[in-house]
Amino acid sequence: MRKSAKLTGRSAFPTAAKLGIVGGGQLARMLALEALPMGVSVHILCPDRNEPAAQVTAHWHEGSPEHPHQLQKFAQEMDFLTFESEFFDLAPLKSIKKTQIAPSPEAMSLLQNRFTQKAALKQWKVPTSPFVFVDDLQNLEDVRQQLGGKIVLKLANGGYDGKGTFYSKNSADSKKLQTQMAQSSPSLLAEAFIPFQRELALMCARSTRGEFIHFPLVQSHQVESRCDWVMGPIQHPALARLLPKLKKFLAGIDYVGVIGFELFDVNGDLLVNEVAPRVHNSGHYSQQALSESQFALHAKAVLGLPLHTPRLLQPAFCMVNLIGQGHKNINLDSNLTGTLHWYGKSESRKGRKMGHINYTGTHLRKLLQQALKERKRMVL
Amino acid sequence: MRKSAKLTGRSAFPTAAKLGIVGGGQLARMLALEALPMGVSVHILCPDRNEPAAQVTAHWHEGSPEHPHQLQKFAQEMDFLTFESEFFDLAPLKSIKKTQIAPSPEAMSLLQNRFTQKAALKQWKVPTSPFVFVDDLQNLEDVRQQLGGKIVLKLANGGYDGKGTFYSKNSADSKKLQTQMAQSSPSLLAEAFIPFQRELALMCARSTRGEFIHFPLVQSHQVESRCDWVMGPIQHPALARLLPKLKKFLAGIDYVGVIGFELFDVNGDLLVNEVAPRVHNSGHYSQQALSESQFALHAKAVLGLPLHTPRLLQPAFCMVNLIGQGHKNINLDSNLTGTLHWYGKSESRKGRKMGHINYTGTHLRKLLQQALKERKRMVL
Repeated sequence: MRKSAKLTGRSAFPTAAKLGIVGGGQLARMLALEALPMGVSVHILCPDRNEPAAQVTAHWHEGSPEHPHQLQKFAQEMDFLTFESEFFDLAPLKSIKKTQIAPSPEAMSLLQNRFTQKAALKQWKVPTSPFVFVDDLQNLEDVRQQLGGKIVLKLANGGYDGKGTFYSKNSADSKKLQTQMAQSSPSLLAEAFIPFQRELALMCARSTRGEFIHFPLVQSHQVESRCDWVMGPIQHPALARLLPKLKKFLAGIDYVGVIGFELFDVNGDLLVNEVAPRVHNSGHYSQQALSESQFALHAKAVLGLPLHTPRLLQPAFCMVNLIGQGHKNINLDSNLTGTLHWYGKSESRKGRKMGHINYTGTHLRKLLQQALKERKRMVL
Repeated sequence: MRKSAKLTGRSAFPTAAKLGIVGGGQLARMLALEALPMGVSVHILCPDRNEPAAQVTAHWHEGSPEHPHQLQKFAQEMDFLTFESEFFDLAPLKSIKKTQIAPSPEAMSLLQNRFTQKAALKQWKVPTSPFVFVDDLQNLEDVRQQLGGKIVLKLANGGYDGKGTFYSKNSADSKKLQTQMAQSSPSLLAEAFIPFQRELALMCARSTRGEFIHFPLVQSHQVESRCDWVMGPIQHPALARLLPKLKKFLAGIDYVGVIGFELFDVNGDLLVNEVAPRVHNSGHYSQQALSESQFALHAKAVLGLPLHTPRLLQPAFCMVNLIGQGHKNINLDSNLTGTLHWYGKSESRKGRKMGHINYTGTHLRKLLQQALKERKRMVL
């Protein structure tokens, strides 16, 4: 078990402990904003000074997470290190000893690949859909039939927000995919298609001391495979059964930090669809709805501090994403009753997450209605 | 009435509206942290890159608020401008037209001088203690007798946290003060000493549209003339009478932004002791206890956005300050149930405000007990 570095004493003031965040997007930005009051200096590694996270610190390190030497050099200069994304090569970090890295490069590597992620879920008995690893596209039709006739195919590495996801529900689909992918011949994870009632999500966290905590269950609504809104808390009879399994899973892979589980609600059961080893869009509501947000808790976990289950501050909450509309503007000068979190991106491209708004109150459905109405007003 | 600058549209993204904050201390830092999610870029004017607020932005402007040209240049480059302190010369700003400045230099000048502040309170019928302006120290003894025998003397300009405050309860005291100050012959405000039951405080805010909102009333406990803890909400029968007067006062001086009123609780009445034209230590609790903090509301007021009364999220709250102990350390690695806000100051001097911790819960006295216990553990 790792220990927390010393955050104590006068000697720490002129040279406060350094928390490095790999990546410059909105997740790194919101993490930075909540880590700063904890008594660390926050350092950001990303290519551009105008990226969302680089704007909120004096300590921007020019470089790319995908450049092994730049990543390694950055990590070596830090006391603590964490990530806003799992989609880069973590090998350069495995030799680093002095810096406290959380989640560990080993756990991150395991979870960044969809196949090893799925295998680990199965190993630790976390309920998930039946799956097969497809290393030869010639087997696609066999796999489809084996998994019940309708399958979802995901690139083993790097896909997110629906990118790198394909479907086959008959032999014609399988043939078409074979032809399309013949050139690239990617590694694919094939999963049985799950006819779910709704998508739910659950944020959990684990500390260096092995403490496990979880947030309320939420419903997450996707539009074009991208999170559109989240609301909660949601009650579900299968949650009590799922939690001890998630706890064992995280202990099994010695995970430290906040982690997001995307879930399918299927006939009264909960299946884990995907795992995000970091803060996650489905947990943004926690900035206003809980006594401690996912960003604060992730920072605490990385710093080796104890974790407490955050309290729900109001009976109901929701979050709506502000998605770039391309040619349309987003009007920030609106009379919002919710709390705006704008990411400060330099360009509003179509489909890009530009910000979100959090709402808390007493009546869940009314709150969501209000949120959707206010958001509509913002997109001119 | 001033209008808000345009926060709208794609054109705003590469060149987001610039919010300038004059000063680099903890108030500027916490203001910056909450303004950043609103879709502006935050710029800080202060002498040193290591000051608390300069650490949390890419846009540090080297310079001093007390240097007229540096202040003027900074202000001219901004779309919006505000302040973390009222203790500098505002004259260089009075000629600036393009930048939206809030509070206005006129209102700030009026409130930064204790005599004009007091005169304005009287003009707008805000209850406050009897007072006399002392421009000749020879009159001190007359003034003391005129004000009931026991007086508090305050430097007209620049005193805070008990600095620049003196007492006289008899002719010997008056003589001593005359001798002490003979050299500097300062301008002094003499106030009748008020035998108050306790000190209360109230944060209010006013928007460019003239909206007036107020926070819950709180009790504030001072140690060595410095805020030590704050708790609330406090019910008081005189509050309902005071609020319309404060509203008229702020409208009268056309104040825009958050403003703190330090109050005396005297025999069931409320007297205004001092006015702080900015975010204030007695409002820090709002970061956790209210649906919107004083920092968010001040930023919104400055940006010309509408203001809504924030909701109390839990029945009770308190805040404890972390004060530098000189030779002793403050241990940040503590198992806190409250939320730490550490200011990142480069040195822990005795008496210096180094950070604070916010608590929310259901039982006010128990919460404060818990907070004081946890703080004790942090000072080694």
